[in-house]
Amino acid sequence: MEGDSTLQLRVFDLNCWAIRYLSKRRQERVRLIGDVLRQERFDLVLLQEVWSEQDYSDLKAKLGGCYPFSHYFRSGVIGSGLCVFSRFTILDTLLYQYSLNGYPYMLQHGDWFCGKSVGLVIIKISGIIFNVYVTHLHAEYSREKDAYLPHRLVQAWELAQFIRHTSKAADVVLLGGDLNMHPEDVGIRLLRGWTGLRDAFAEAKHFEGCKDGCTLIPNNCFTIKTELLPFPLGIRIDYILYKAISSFMVNCEELKTTTGSAPGMDIPFSDHEAVMATLHIRKQREAASGTLSTAEPALVDVVTEARTEVGVGLRAAQRQRYSTGRLAVLALLLLLLQAAAVLGTLAGLGGQPFPKLSFSLLAFLAVGILLLTTGLHLFHTIEVKMLQGTEEQMRMALRVLQERP
Amino acid sequence: MEGDSTLQLRVFDLNCWAIRYLSKRRQERVRLIGDVLRQERFDLVLLQEVWSEQDYSDLKAKLGGCYPFSHYFRSGVIGSGLCVFSRFTILDTLLYQYSLNGYPYMLQHGDWFCGKSVGLVIIKISGIIFNVYVTHLHAEYSREKDAYLPHRLVQAWELAQFIRHTSKAADVVLLGGDLNMHPEDVGIRLLRGWTGLRDAFAEAKHFEGCKDGCTLIPNNCFTIKTELLPFPLGIRIDYILYKAISSFMVNCEELKTTTGSAPGMDIPFSDHEAVMATLHIRKQREAASGTLSTAEPALVDVVTEARTEVGVGLRAAQRQRYSTGRLAVLALLLLLLQAAAVLGTLAGLGGQPFPKLSFSLLAFLAVGILLLTTGLHLFHTIEVKMLQGTEEQMRMALRVLQERP
Repeated sequence: MEGDSTLQLRVFDLNCWAIRYLSKRRQERVRLIGDVLRQERFDLVLLQEVWSEQDYSDLKAKLGGCYPFSHYFRSGVIGSGLCVFSRFTILDTLLYQYSLNGYPYMLQHGDWFCGKSVGLVIIKISGIIFNVYVTHLHAEYSREKDAYLPHRLVQAWELAQFIRHTSKAADVVLLGGDLNMHPEDVGIRLLRGWTGLRDAFAEAKHFEGCKDGCTLIPNNCFTIKTELLPFPLGIRIDYILYKAISSFMVNCEELKTTTGSAPGMDIPFSDHEAVMATLHIRKQREAASGTLSTAEPALVDVVTEARTEVGVGLRAAQRQRYSTGRLAVLALLLLLLQAAAVLGTLAGLGGQPFPKLSFSLLAFLAVGILLLTTGLHLFHTIEVKMLQGTEEQMRMALRVLQERP
Repeated sequence: MEGDSTLQLRVFDLNCWAIRYLSKRRQERVRLIGDVLRQERFDLVLLQEVWSEQDYSDLKAKLGGCYPFSHYFRSGVIGSGLCVFSRFTILDTLLYQYSLNGYPYMLQHGDWFCGKSVGLVIIKISGIIFNVYVTHLHAEYSREKDAYLPHRLVQAWELAQFIRHTSKAADVVLLGGDLNMHPEDVGIRLLRGWTGLRDAFAEAKHFEGCKDGCTLIPNNCFTIKTELLPFPLGIRIDYILYKAISSFMVNCEELKTTTGSAPGMDIPFSDHEAVMATLHIRKQREAASGTLSTAEPALVDVVTEARTEVGVGLRAAQRQRYSTGRLAVLALLLLLLQAAAVLGTLAGLGGQPFPKLSFSLLAFLAVGILLLTTGLHLFHTIEVKMLQGTEEQMRMALRVLQERP
């Protein structure tokens, strides 16, 4: 506490890039992150991509003294990768898994296996209820032809809806994470507009760190330089966002990012830069106004833009559902044809049409294709349903926005 | 509205058993449900097992006049089966999919494919905010050896957590659905204790319907009589639960169930009985007390009991993860052995050990087993993670309960 009426909160956010067997110098970096967190004594630490539960346990053991409370959010095969360390008691937690998260067959991207989610922890500091959210949205692998945009928009929408619905009793809302969106992207405008969250970088009184607040920079020895060629300064995709809900005010006094290497070290924490915010929370006389910060006509435009993109994704998913279904039917027909040939041979209607080996290999192939395409057809059916559901929710939101006096 | 200060709300809840191609006389029953709903003019209708979107659209078209607002919750391959019809504007919706819902290989039970979820719709009537939840939990196929108990408990816990976290700005909370639990089951006690929801059947001033409020009865021509042999009166698994959160009071004036056939008809609506509640909502001078109705020491016992059951499920899931992993390794070894044999033959180290056909069939089998067991291993890995996550959340809840003054 600073003075009588101002609470100071120091928040640390980092995508740790701690993928077992894949991330370079992982253990060394996790140790380094632990050392700095212990030394710097933040109030709240929000981490992403801590995929190994062992890494979390090691951090927990190391940080137990200064961050006695922590939570690791489990989900999916590998986990959500999300965890929180806190100086203050964690009163409650909740995890929400996004309904869409890429494609299982895009193995080279792998997002699908990670169960991307948003985690909520509730803490109370000096009587003020904080709803703290940590999340990681689907990566963008190509800015020109971003096949994952509809899925990321569904995630941004679900994130915004989850925050709106769960934060109504909170005094202060904090969101930290790797949103995989540039500040001007439709998903960020949707999230900010629909929740009223403010961007710590844009609001900070003092800023120190990478130019434009970038968190993926060419200067970091772990980033892939070719991917950043169109962005000589780097890109900003990691955020700390906040808002006060009831009779409180939040200001960002200072925002810092690391600049390619950990403070005083020769290697970076991660391929992402850490974001560190110092927030001041004050009680104010009058209750804060409504939760939507963007002027509503502008918000209508943003929701409409997002809905159009979701519609584009919906039509692509419908096409894929159709083509996988057609392939499955063809494979089934081939199998039936083979079965008929076997039955014909058994009934003595003709000679052996194929040698046994090629015949069984063909059947093997047909069964394989049938299973695969049926699986994909079911997957795209779910995708269509979730995109339709999101589009409908957005339509309902537009109706409510437009009906307001 | 009844008088100046009392709002009367008539709620209808039904598991419609409307599974395409499987449920008997489905279209006839859906038409019947639509007719009665139109005639009876409830305020709020909560339906489950409306698996076909066409059935929903037909109901929507028929009910548009008296229930101008409705929402169908999409999820999973088949859908969630959940929908809501309302006389009052639906302001917002949110869907939460339970993280566990049975096993994909239990095809005869099929729950896994249905994406069991809880749907939330927010409505406002005469300035009172209602958070209305509709859900359907995993079925119980054997009461003596209920393999799905841990999954249903995870669902009951997630349902309770979802309600607690999303209802903080509501004046009144309503939950309707097929909970697949008897009134004395640990899951119901957990749900009621942890949310403070009250059971309309237990609280109703007047009751009319099946003895003990049963909703799955031998008298219904669609129920499977052998399953109900241990329960001559039937069982009660469909509920309307409610509570007031802020300065409101809710009373259940009347509760009714159908009794084996639809009013004035020769066939029932469904294999379940409908539950119909008349609720009175009044403003009260003093704000309602805390959200937990059960005395906290009793609540500690319930959470502990539920946690023990989740622990039993966790150990079973760990065993299955281990045995499927071992089988996958064995299948991989067989494949490697075959590959070595082929290489040996190619290098001229020995004769052809097998005829080609049996050799390729064996390889086919090994690949099949490898794929299947790897899939199952990944599935049980997720199951273990979610059971661990729930156990940990329950441990945190116990800590918070015990630390309260």
